[in-house]
Amino acid sequence: MTTTRVCVIGCGFGGLEAVRALARSEAVEVILIDRTNHHLFQPLLYQVATADVAAPAVAGPIRHILRRETRTGRLTILRAEVTTIDAAQKTLQLDDGSLLGYDALIVAAGATHSYFGNDHWAAFAPGLKTLTDAFAIRSRIIGAFEQAERTSSDVERSACLNFVIIGGGPTGVELAGALAEIARHTLPDEFRRIDSRQARIVLMEGGPRVLGAFDERLSESAAKQLRKLGVELHTGCQVTGIDAEGVDYREGGEQKRLPARTVLWAAGVAASPLGKALAASAGATLDRAGRVSVQPDLSLAGHPEIQVIGDLAAATSPTKQGPKPVPGVSPAAKQMGKLAAANILRRLRGEPTRPFKYADYGSLSTLGRNAAVVQLEAPVVGRVRFSGYPAWLFWLFAHIYFLIGFRNRLVVLIDWAWSYWTFARHARVVAQPDKPKAPATPSPS
Amino acid sequence: MTTTRVCVIGCGFGGLEAVRALARSEAVEVILIDRTNHHLFQPLLYQVATADVAAPAVAGPIRHILRRETRTGRLTILRAEVTTIDAAQKTLQLDDGSLLGYDALIVAAGATHSYFGNDHWAAFAPGLKTLTDAFAIRSRIIGAFEQAERTSSDVERSACLNFVIIGGGPTGVELAGALAEIARHTLPDEFRRIDSRQARIVLMEGGPRVLGAFDERLSESAAKQLRKLGVELHTGCQVTGIDAEGVDYREGGEQKRLPARTVLWAAGVAASPLGKALAASAGATLDRAGRVSVQPDLSLAGHPEIQVIGDLAAATSPTKQGPKPVPGVSPAAKQMGKLAAANILRRLRGEPTRPFKYADYGSLSTLGRNAAVVQLEAPVVGRVRFSGYPAWLFWLFAHIYFLIGFRNRLVVLIDWAWSYWTFARHARVVAQPDKPKAPATPSPS
Repeated sequence: MTTTRVCVIGCGFGGLEAVRALARSEAVEVILIDRTNHHLFQPLLYQVATADVAAPAVAGPIRHILRRETRTGRLTILRAEVTTIDAAQKTLQLDDGSLLGYDALIVAAGATHSYFGNDHWAAFAPGLKTLTDAFAIRSRIIGAFEQAERTSSDVERSACLNFVIIGGGPTGVELAGALAEIARHTLPDEFRRIDSRQARIVLMEGGPRVLGAFDERLSESAAKQLRKLGVELHTGCQVTGIDAEGVDYREGGEQKRLPARTVLWAAGVAASPLGKALAASAGATLDRAGRVSVQPDLSLAGHPEIQVIGDLAAATSPTKQGPKPVPGVSPAAKQMGKLAAANILRRLRGEPTRPFKYADYGSLSTLGRNAAVVQLEAPVVGRVRFSGYPAWLFWLFAHIYFLIGFRNRLVVLIDWAWSYWTFARHARVVAQPDKPKAPATPSPS
Repeated sequence: MTTTRVCVIGCGFGGLEAVRALARSEAVEVILIDRTNHHLFQPLLYQVATADVAAPAVAGPIRHILRRETRTGRLTILRAEVTTIDAAQKTLQLDDGSLLGYDALIVAAGATHSYFGNDHWAAFAPGLKTLTDAFAIRSRIIGAFEQAERTSSDVERSACLNFVIIGGGPTGVELAGALAEIARHTLPDEFRRIDSRQARIVLMEGGPRVLGAFDERLSESAAKQLRKLGVELHTGCQVTGIDAEGVDYREGGEQKRLPARTVLWAAGVAASPLGKALAASAGATLDRAGRVSVQPDLSLAGHPEIQVIGDLAAATSPTKQGPKPVPGVSPAAKQMGKLAAANILRRLRGEPTRPFKYADYGSLSTLGRNAAVVQLEAPVVGRVRFSGYPAWLFWLFAHIYFLIGFRNRLVVLIDWAWSYWTFARHARVVAQPDKPKAPATPSPS
């Protein structure tokens, strides 16, 4: 019997779970391919961007996480980028031009930012998906306060102290809350010419409320908590332009402009370009966000050997009200990873595959110090909601619990305790200083 | 009475100490200028490069470290680069073109790598002075093992597993020891196609022994300890060329070549270009490494208002055997910073300045797990030397003691304990993957 080779593309929550499940079986050889050398605990990435924790606290080397699986001799890990998929030949092409054959394939390549057709905004409003993104955002935030201290122009100073976050989903509110805390609690006393408390943290959301995926009552609570932290909330606000100097937006039928040096993008998500590769090669159907439509068992129509999972998959899950789209959250990706692996092993044994059913345990989002919203889907009592301090404690322990590795948990707990009691954000270091983009302004000598 | 404005360029060990001393006096206003936003604990920078600790563990935000001094209202911190010094006009020009006047000046701009006229080697053999350097080295080391696992060419694999460190001073032996530990203890079991223990860690030193600044007996002990850790030692070895594929060197009268993908430079140091600015503007004399000759009180001849300290200064200190050059180490920089600040305040009070006298308490260098050499200059008993495990413990606690901030000490201790017991190096994450430089090599599909 020859071993079946399963290739897994991407080591996010879905890919990692799939590899772990597959490596337990002696029937398959697994090749995991990822562009980076680390698995990222994405829910805490905003804390790297806002200098609360260091990168290694929320990212672990893939080889270290999967060392036990590697020891079985059945897992190979390659740091490489998959450039195309040939579904007919069952091969992947890697970025160095080499070809890699597969018998079964799990595509878990995730998503990136979408600027809704305005890709030129990317240069002015970075999004937050990778460690590189997080470092870039950290550098901009710190650079803006530094430039405000340095400049002698009032106009520039106020633009430096305006921070705009576009998108009122979980990432947007987390960034806004953290920025408000930096301006109000971390930085005061550290500058001489500016008062960091005068910074404006502006959160712009196109829809009628923040955290639109949550219960309406929790959205209201979130809005109240954000305002209390010092965030300016603009809902029903359409961004129409972003450039180096600020943001154009429509609000209440009026066209407005806010000069701002720091604009962060937390509004749109687009599936990985590998979705297009699957469309071209395997005839996959894509939705508007570029996600791949999958069969109930997460395989591609006509290609039972290809599974698509996580943020790249447009999957549905049966509910009492009929099939509902599966949200792009980490528990869903993990559950898909587990099922995709199990279905591959079932097919090998000649058993029928099983359909995906998303077990929704609820959602939670933090907003800043002592502020969060939690919505749990409990088996018997139904939906449970709470917010404020208890929700924040719940969020904290849930995230610590799901962090990978004992060391990371310990270090993140220490970092958080330290930030909580001292208001200091120790990770406020940027390796490469951003050059100020402003024209030279003479300062008093 | 108008306040005297003192500008301090650079927030390394010397600049930081000077600012702290100056900020205590109500007679002066202090402006500190640094290119980055952090003070770096340089003695542990090699641990960032070798993925033992995260950057924020050994770098602290300058504004946070100096928040008490800022609160006096007499200290301004600017993140900027000084491009030129006009000693006649007593002004500094900053990178945005603005001018900054001073009454007194402390130049503590430090040093950078010197490739002894072979600047084109820089692209192939990075040095280690800044956080950016450390990240680049970390990325190369990890990338080399990844590429070794990925390639199907035996020649390339062995080049990827050859690591050359040029320079047998403290930084060189620290890097070599850490690399040996990574290859022998951290990575085994994490790869499938390669055995990381087969990596060659080659340390090349031009002089007859490593750690030339130490006692001869300690050099011998260091060499023995390094060999035990698995480092290949080449002393009396002249590097004649470095390119993307390897290193050319002369050893024992023979010209040789070692193919290597990772070459690290720890051999030469050159003073900051601000030395040249002082030569042009204030007639300062430079030594061969570009360091500025200073008067016994650390001022420039003919410019008592300018003090040069730290690695940028070619200072001498009186000893029983006559004046001896002050070594480029952090205790010397700190002592110079303190004296330069005190001398500025003395001049303001109309008192005579005092000459610099270096208090040498000894040197210590670590070589890896349980391995180090220590040489103490004790007041009564004279020179005390020890090596091996006790020296390593001494090194460890000395470095923890001198780290800035309670949090950093705690976090570094935890990181070290973690690495020590588990052999894992948690900081093994690289944000931006290095693209493999090699031509495409077809691998079995």
